Amino acid sequence: MRVRELGEFGLIERLVRRLTNGKLPAGAARTVVGVGDDAAVVQSAGRFQIATTDTMVEGVHFQAATASWADIGWKALASNISDIAAMGGTPEFALITLCLPPSLDVEAVDGLYQGLQECATTYDVTIVGGDIVRSPVLTITVALTGHAAVRPRGRPALLLRSAARVGDAIAISGFPGDSAGGLRLLQGSEPFIESEEHGRLVQAHRRPQPRVALGQLLVAEGVRCAIDVSDGLAQDLGHICEMSHVGAVVGVDRIPLSAALVRAFPDDALELAVGGGEDYELLFTAPLPVVNRVIERARIPVTVIGEVVRPSERPVRFIDEGGDEVRFEHLGWDHLAGGTAAA
Amino acid sequence: MRVRELGEFGLIERLVRRLTNGKLPAGAARTVVGVGDDAAVVQSAGRFQIATTDTMVEGVHFQAATASWADIGWKALASNISDIAAMGGTPEFALITLCLPPSLDVEAVDGLYQGLQECATTYDVTIVGGDIVRSPVLTITVALTGHAAVRPRGRPALLLRSAARVGDAIAISGFPGDSAGGLRLLQGSEPFIESEEHGRLVQAHRRPQPRVALGQLLVAEGVRCAIDVSDGLAQDLGHICEMSHVGAVVGVDRIPLSAALVRAFPDDALELAVGGGEDYELLFTAPLPVVNRVIERARIPVTVIGEVVRPSERPVRFIDEGGDEVRFEHLGWDHLAGGTAAA
Repeated sequence: MRVRELGEFGLIERLVRRLTNGKLPAGAARTVVGVGDDAAVVQSAGRFQIATTDTMVEGVHFQAATASWADIGWKALASNISDIAAMGGTPEFALITLCLPPSLDVEAVDGLYQGLQECATTYDVTIVGGDIVRSPVLTITVALTGHAAVRPRGRPALLLRSAARVGDAIAISGFPGDSAGGLRLLQGSEPFIESEEHGRLVQAHRRPQPRVALGQLLVAEGVRCAIDVSDGLAQDLGHICEMSHVGAVVGVDRIPLSAALVRAFPDDALELAVGGGEDYELLFTAPLPVVNRVIERARIPVTVIGEVVRPSERPVRFIDEGGDEVRFEHLGWDHLAGGTAAA
Repeated sequence: MRVRELGEFGLIERLVRRLTNGKLPAGAARTVVGVGDDAAVVQSAGRFQIATTDTMVEGVHFQAATASWADIGWKALASNISDIAAMGGTPEFALITLCLPPSLDVEAVDGLYQGLQECATTYDVTIVGGDIVRSPVLTITVALTGHAAVRPRGRPALLLRSAARVGDAIAISGFPGDSAGGLRLLQGSEPFIESEEHGRLVQAHRRPQPRVALGQLLVAEGVRCAIDVSDGLAQDLGHICEMSHVGAVVGVDRIPLSAALVRAFPDDALELAVGGGEDYELLFTAPLPVVNRVIERARIPVTVIGEVVRPSERPVRFIDEGGDEVRFEHLGWDHLAGGTAAA
């Protein structure tokens, strides 16, 4: 069987099974959260360390044509910071691995590092080292560690994909779809106009802002379930449903669409918001009073879009104002199968 | 300028300058050892955390033809463990990133993970997560964290490349060159004979044994300077000289050559030991009485091969029994320039 046939999620599931069935090393510090969440969490010397890694491959995750090298560097680190934000943690130290074609201009590497450093400075992350190797394909891998806040009685304060409960409200930060809209503009499918609105979409794609402060607020307010939206709202909500053994109903009219997205893509704005990836917003669930407290205290827009329900055959359902189901054609991206996965 | 022209070490130097000249984030936990040593060390909540990352690219760092998938997995983790061993630390948690061509057999991935898990179990490392992405080129990146022992008064016990002092003895563990000899046999430059000796060389290449216990012994005995031999004895000793601002004189007759290497490559054994990479032995310097205590207490062979001297134009010099200088043609590998760097 080929990797393509199994797909990213099938392969991860297979490897998780191997790892957890395999003999785990005795005496290793306790793994609090293992493979399967946004990041791993390990307990070591009374501290809860969070660790995550993310890779961007030229031609797969980015094209030098639609972003500057500095933008690519920014996003490589930002996607990792977002994983730690989705756990409610604080990012600290990064290791950067660059696989470089020997024919690459050194100025490209300088640009990558400029973007990495800008993102690190913005989010108070220290780049402590890394590796540089030769490769036919330009690839950037970031490994990032951070820590979780500690609750009374020494338990970690974490946001987990597996903690959604039936009856929870489902909420999302910011405006999903802006990044996907920006990418479409960059790919030239629509004429790009030098306007504040087009600029906003393009910026959302090029310089995503991981929601570290919001993640920490969620933890402080007692939220227990979150994920960052990297594969698209529908698919990432599906991950929560799967890990929490619940279902979700989302009202399509409640999904916050930015004015910029609606004006640039009046026909496709909703589909971009539901299926487009790389938003790096936080999607979370909690009892409605808790969510309302978050909405009041957050410095960015947070919107309730639906409700956690009992699990059913189709874990994530979208409904219109009349309660009728809405179907979307393209809902998320499977990185290995190389195509879109139908929900 | 192209990456090729600057080379791996030139590029690292350039990026280090950028990182250290750039505005470092305020309030980040203290970086004890930054870019430039075997691994980075950061202080966080009274603990000294060690972090390192290493990448292997198919066609550059490994060929599926000369190793099983499990061997490749083993080595990907072992090379990182070796970096932490060279700091005198204890490895703990690993993140694994696989960049996979969609056409790859899933059995290959299973094999990789088997080797990774075998190495993790052997060295008491926990694989806590990672990332899987699509890429035209199979690439394995491991990020590994660990911790350093703490000396009285809360200072970290570390082995640094920068701590060699004039007058120190230079010592090495095991038998350098065995791995390079094994690779030559695998590449078929010499007929491979099913013998214990050839098997030993091949095994040294396929399943290197990072010297974690030795690194910890070095720290306990008061050694302060070490590096792991990954680029070759001459080149890695050159790194110590550069970082410590010293020179080194090595007696070629003192370099420990395994009987297996000498018999398989009677003419080239010395050159393989001096210039061949991927030994993952520890090369260290300390006052001779300290080294002698280590030799007595180590469970593996440790051999004195030379002395740290004042810096001169050629930092690393090799001499024969008569005191005459010996020159080697190929001394180490520059991963970006894609050729050998003359010392």
